[in-house]
Amino acid sequence: MKFDVLTLFPEMFEALNHSILKKAQENGIIEINPINIRDFSNNKHKKVDDYPYGGGAGMVMQAEPIFNAVDYIINRYGKKPYTIMMSPRGKRFEQSDAKRFLQKEHIVILCGHYEGIDERVLSIVDEEISIGDFVLTGGEIASMAIIDCISRLVPGVLPKEESYQDESFYDGLLEYPQYTRPEVFRGMKVPDVLLSGHHEKIRRWRKYQSLKITYERRPDLLNKKKLTKEEQDMLDEIIKSKEE
Amino acid sequence: MKFDVLTLFPEMFEALNHSILKKAQENGIIEINPINIRDFSNNKHKKVDDYPYGGGAGMVMQAEPIFNAVDYIINRYGKKPYTIMMSPRGKRFEQSDAKRFLQKEHIVILCGHYEGIDERVLSIVDEEISIGDFVLTGGEIASMAIIDCISRLVPGVLPKEESYQDESFYDGLLEYPQYTRPEVFRGMKVPDVLLSGHHEKIRRWRKYQSLKITYERRPDLLNKKKLTKEEQDMLDEIIKSKEE
Repeated sequence: MKFDVLTLFPEMFEALNHSILKKAQENGIIEINPINIRDFSNNKHKKVDDYPYGGGAGMVMQAEPIFNAVDYIINRYGKKPYTIMMSPRGKRFEQSDAKRFLQKEHIVILCGHYEGIDERVLSIVDEEISIGDFVLTGGEIASMAIIDCISRLVPGVLPKEESYQDESFYDGLLEYPQYTRPEVFRGMKVPDVLLSGHHEKIRRWRKYQSLKITYERRPDLLNKKKLTKEEQDMLDEIIKSKEE
Repeated sequence: MKFDVLTLFPEMFEALNHSILKKAQENGIIEINPINIRDFSNNKHKKVDDYPYGGGAGMVMQAEPIFNAVDYIINRYGKKPYTIMMSPRGKRFEQSDAKRFLQKEHIVILCGHYEGIDERVLSIVDEEISIGDFVLTGGEIASMAIIDCISRLVPGVLPKEESYQDESFYDGLLEYPQYTRPEVFRGMKVPDVLLSGHHEKIRRWRKYQSLKITYERRPDLLNKKKLTKEEQDMLDEIIKSKEE
């Protein structure tokens, strides 16, 4: 999986050179190329922004350096990769989008900054993506989030194939509580069932806890999920116990 | 505003040392302290994780080093600051949470990793926060997002007081299109109204565009917002034009 990131702050992407993403890059499984938009400015001061037409606070990123950078990518690869722009107006990113982008194999991610980007840039953008309803300084941190999320799905990135199947949102439920050593810490004890060695009881306890916490915090996720008979029975029990 | 971030990857937070957050830190307006949880491990190999009780893939972060790190912060400041844990089970962060956290003046942000964190850590966490329904390697990138978002609200961080008032989500609408020089780029022209110099027309055009894009992409935001008479009239016009 290859990510070409168009940004004014390429150094920020050093943050992706840690932990499992570092190993995945070293092993050539994923490639993250921050490309400095400023390098594609034809202005002698390497300016990339200007005042907005119609007035208003802040500066707007100009179309030209961005078009030039995308032209460079097109020339290099012989085609235009799928192009995403990080934008507060975009579709809210979720796990299913990560699976979708994974299929593209090579994506360009454009990070906006300042008050905005010249609207004409949208003519070369396939999709606008947002990570949520909050304002960020630029698209850089948001793009790191989606690169991390997509990369975790690339085979070979996670240490074990099974690792990500257990993860939150993978089966549409929030995660059950986890415990590790010591058995008692500051007076707080690990639930007995987890020490029982009884695999079926542990599986059921975890499933029940996942359903319970999802019901309490994110009931909307339950509406999206196809429940098994076991899950539906557990959920009925949870709802009943709340009513008592 | 002060952020103490408990993390296994303190170097990642270099990414916040750019652009306006760099200036804000240099000016002492905000303080971002990444604290390495590993430094608080009593284990001679500085181990901070262990196998989950009850089995399963992956490793779980142990409670002890995290409690030790929080004790260190408590000792240093004489009280426990408001403590947030980044977690896929948490409340989804939005702009109103940023305003809320801003009032705390000093927050501790705990970044999880691996398969999870020992559940007993929740006893010292005031609130779990998620940035969205997608899986990340750890809480680091998510915490950068909320630090960026909160910091932008701290007076003096943005170059001009008015700057953030214009921003997306500030008035509950998505942003209108922006344009900057040149007037014509690759055959695409800036809308005439923005070149007219007629402030009232420009204001109305922008408001209309904001309402239109919000109606098309995020109608849920319109339900949350109290519309002015002008906005309601424009919205009626937009809906009518769609029906034709």
